[in-house]
Amino acid sequence: MSADLINSSSWKKMQTLAQSPFDLTAEAALSSSGRIARMICHTAGLRLLYATQRVDADVLNVFQEFADEHSLIHRYQEMRKGKVLNKIKGWESENRQVLHTSSRDIFVSTPKEPHSAGQARVELEKLDDFLNEINQQGRYTTLINVGIGGSDLGPRAVYEALKAYNIQGREVRFLANVDPDDAAAILSSVDLTRTLVVVVSKSGTTLETLTNEQLVRARYIEAGLDPAQHFVAVTGSGSPMDNPTSYLRSFYMYDYIGGRYSVTSMVGCLALGFALGMDKLRAFLRGANEMDEACENPSVADNMALLLALLGIWNHNSLGYPTLAVLPYSQGLHRFTAHLQQCDMESNGKSVTINGSPAPIKTGPIVWGEPGTNGQHAFYQLLHQGTEVVPAEFIGFLENQYEMDIVFNNTTSQQKLLANVLAQAVALATGRVHENPNKCFMGNRPSSIILGDRLDPLNMGRLLALYEAKIVYQGFSWKINSFDQEGVELGKILASRFLDHMIDTQKSSTSVEGQFLDVLEK
Amino acid sequence: MSADLINSSSWKKMQTLAQSPFDLTAEAALSSSGRIARMICHTAGLRLLYATQRVDADVLNVFQEFADEHSLIHRYQEMRKGKVLNKIKGWESENRQVLHTSSRDIFVSTPKEPHSAGQARVELEKLDDFLNEINQQGRYTTLINVGIGGSDLGPRAVYEALKAYNIQGREVRFLANVDPDDAAAILSSVDLTRTLVVVVSKSGTTLETLTNEQLVRARYIEAGLDPAQHFVAVTGSGSPMDNPTSYLRSFYMYDYIGGRYSVTSMVGCLALGFALGMDKLRAFLRGANEMDEACENPSVADNMALLLALLGIWNHNSLGYPTLAVLPYSQGLHRFTAHLQQCDMESNGKSVTINGSPAPIKTGPIVWGEPGTNGQHAFYQLLHQGTEVVPAEFIGFLENQYEMDIVFNNTTSQQKLLANVLAQAVALATGRVHENPNKCFMGNRPSSIILGDRLDPLNMGRLLALYEAKIVYQGFSWKINSFDQEGVELGKILASRFLDHMIDTQKSSTSVEGQFLDVLEK
Repeated sequence: MSADLINSSSWKKMQTLAQSPFDLTAEAALSSSGRIARMICHTAGLRLLYATQRVDADVLNVFQEFADEHSLIHRYQEMRKGKVLNKIKGWESENRQVLHTSSRDIFVSTPKEPHSAGQARVELEKLDDFLNEINQQGRYTTLINVGIGGSDLGPRAVYEALKAYNIQGREVRFLANVDPDDAAAILSSVDLTRTLVVVVSKSGTTLETLTNEQLVRARYIEAGLDPAQHFVAVTGSGSPMDNPTSYLRSFYMYDYIGGRYSVTSMVGCLALGFALGMDKLRAFLRGANEMDEACENPSVADNMALLLALLGIWNHNSLGYPTLAVLPYSQGLHRFTAHLQQCDMESNGKSVTINGSPAPIKTGPIVWGEPGTNGQHAFYQLLHQGTEVVPAEFIGFLENQYEMDIVFNNTTSQQKLLANVLAQAVALATGRVHENPNKCFMGNRPSSIILGDRLDPLNMGRLLALYEAKIVYQGFSWKINSFDQEGVELGKILASRFLDHMIDTQKSSTSVEGQFLDVLEK
Repeated sequence: MSADLINSSSWKKMQTLAQSPFDLTAEAALSSSGRIARMICHTAGLRLLYATQRVDADVLNVFQEFADEHSLIHRYQEMRKGKVLNKIKGWESENRQVLHTSSRDIFVSTPKEPHSAGQARVELEKLDDFLNEINQQGRYTTLINVGIGGSDLGPRAVYEALKAYNIQGREVRFLANVDPDDAAAILSSVDLTRTLVVVVSKSGTTLETLTNEQLVRARYIEAGLDPAQHFVAVTGSGSPMDNPTSYLRSFYMYDYIGGRYSVTSMVGCLALGFALGMDKLRAFLRGANEMDEACENPSVADNMALLLALLGIWNHNSLGYPTLAVLPYSQGLHRFTAHLQQCDMESNGKSVTINGSPAPIKTGPIVWGEPGTNGQHAFYQLLHQGTEVVPAEFIGFLENQYEMDIVFNNTTSQQKLLANVLAQAVALATGRVHENPNKCFMGNRPSSIILGDRLDPLNMGRLLALYEAKIVYQGFSWKINSFDQEGVELGKILASRFLDHMIDTQKSSTSVEGQFLDVLEK
């Protein structure tokens, strides 16, 4: 159906154009000919400023050709309608639909895929009832979310981002690491009688999560409390955890939503609904749904997710940069990059195409980053003057969350934040010539700025869905399966071998090195 | 004095050997011929297992030749003795000594550089007195550390790592970001009357820090409290902040210690001393000092910092991998990688040698990472099966901190953590052949494991100093100045221009895009 990647005419054109990319360091390169005003993409209430990327009108035209030639919009629409995309043709694979967008397709009477959207509504109704019950009891102040990977990073990132909107007196703690010190630190600072424990595992068999669940249950029992009155399950229907005798309530997640795309399913909704209440949770879901809809726009210049995806491919495949820094100028987003690390790298860190052949080009980049302005005082030295070129995506907001700000040196802190985002993008792009070689900046380091009005539930939903769609569009472009994660299996198998050996040698004096060797020699 | 880098015989040999690096995927590559037992480096109570690197005896011999040919140990010794190393020959530069190691060279009567070590002792004595006073008053439970970059990341990383050892009832909060929401979130959850505010800025002029200081002071005044009874300064002697009318006490930092190397100076000691008490603070300093001493060992095989440095150069320059993942299997170290991002990337993200000529080879890599096992459920997919190869440094401990653990499926959580570290290193190295292309693992992905007995103050000091010395050794190898940060200046200048423009257009309706354009056209 869609064309072969590296032999497609648009791909070849892109590589040709990449031999002389737009020079951001040239005289007035940024300010002339309306470049800045023209290179702004508006989508679902967010703006993308991308004049500081090394692209021009020719490159943007080829982006459109590429999107059309490879039927990217069509594939995205098929995804939302429930096509089985999580598979490798001709090989044993998960063979599943990819329907995370259904978990927020709940605002119209004709959702794209009615069955899954119906299931989402049922679970949201159950959640609404449950939260009403809790509110009436007035008993719970704390929720501990026990989960790992997608059952931790996404919900945690969004919770942290929206903490400013929490219901007074409510907090959520996240327990993920099998490191017992993680659990100890959390349990030493909560009142168990006023705490709900939500255990999240689709299969009901995730080792870290079950271990932590046992650890927390043991604490409840020691304290003379009945865990069944405090524990809630989020799991697949029929999993070992779907058991009313052990849990106050069960909420369901379905196999058509992968962990890293599950924030808007019950995986994220329990913690977020508890913290924010149903109205703000619905605003968050509405924002995500708005973005999903906007991501079907066939015009690359007006489809931020698709544009970000193709700018990323340009930087990664055509200009050859191996990483991407995501740099939010908002302390609330301090865990958002960690979520993206999972969502992006687990989706697109692949070497095999959907046909089972070796990927002929580089797939997903390494994604990393920390919030600004903190990062400016840390690793930005390398961004500006290092020998590695790092494309960057800045995220900024015009207004703050808490309405607590201060004028110092005639500007507010929020203005300082914004001035710094703009300044960094310009500095990376234009560079500086200086007689002292140590004060030279090479420039031509590409970046974009995503701008929102304020980091609130609606915009957080949009931002989350924006990146999900970007990642999906990149996977479609590279023709890989962005929805499985076979790469985590070998580590699991080997860890079991080490654990079995530890059981065998329990209490013997074998050193770590000895164990290492013993297991390898087996 | 020392040889030219790329024309040196050891450098050339390294590049030749890199054409056929050790194949970790070969039959019994890891388990045969005593490789694992031989490839363990013991230094200052820590162990480094590096059998899973793509090196053999020939490469290790060239490492030694390289260290000797380029006088690396000699330069490190010169540094500790106070030579002016923070400079670019023939150009205006900072021209400073590099004496962070003096801040812990306080346990012998003959420190390497007596003047700076004497100053460190004086400040520590002042701190001891101050903490005694506070303990007697019994008034303060919380310390807010206001600082950014080196005055935030390092102290925060170590504080988080050692939280398990806090004095009962004491906590430290860190305020860094100029984002006003960061301050709002912290101030909404502390009791100002029981809070000390430590403001950390060497120059006394860091914009973010002064802004946040004003914001917190305003809160004290609103609450009818006298800030001078709560605020403590850590700053350069004679800086605008060195002012007894505004601060309860001043502690000094000196210009021979760069921000990113300042954790063991007063920059870190205020927060850590408050949280842990002087005894544990001294154990932390002692650990760092032990490692500093051990880093003078001329034998690469017995000098972990030097070995790590050269393994890093091998992976980065000879094998061509642009990034380094630091992956602690300890939740306590969840901010340690962020500290290393600064310490490493700000030090070695340079393009100019100490002679002012362009660096002829790649300098510092991109450093990133998150704790395991969390990361295994997130970005490890790309580490195992992605098209980017990511060298990794794992960090693990044999015992946990809180002595709260649970046996589940016959092993403790701490055992699970350790089994996973070992399993990941093996999986990355050996890979797996499989008939299903999607279940293949390429292997030959290099990693090391740093092992300690327990994450306690002593070992934390060792680990911190280990990485500081590694970074310094890499800078010496690349012949760059690891101690300045000219790369942050252009962003500052441009941010001022944007801020000036915002002041000019205050209350006008200019859009962000308009501002962007206005400033660029000026």
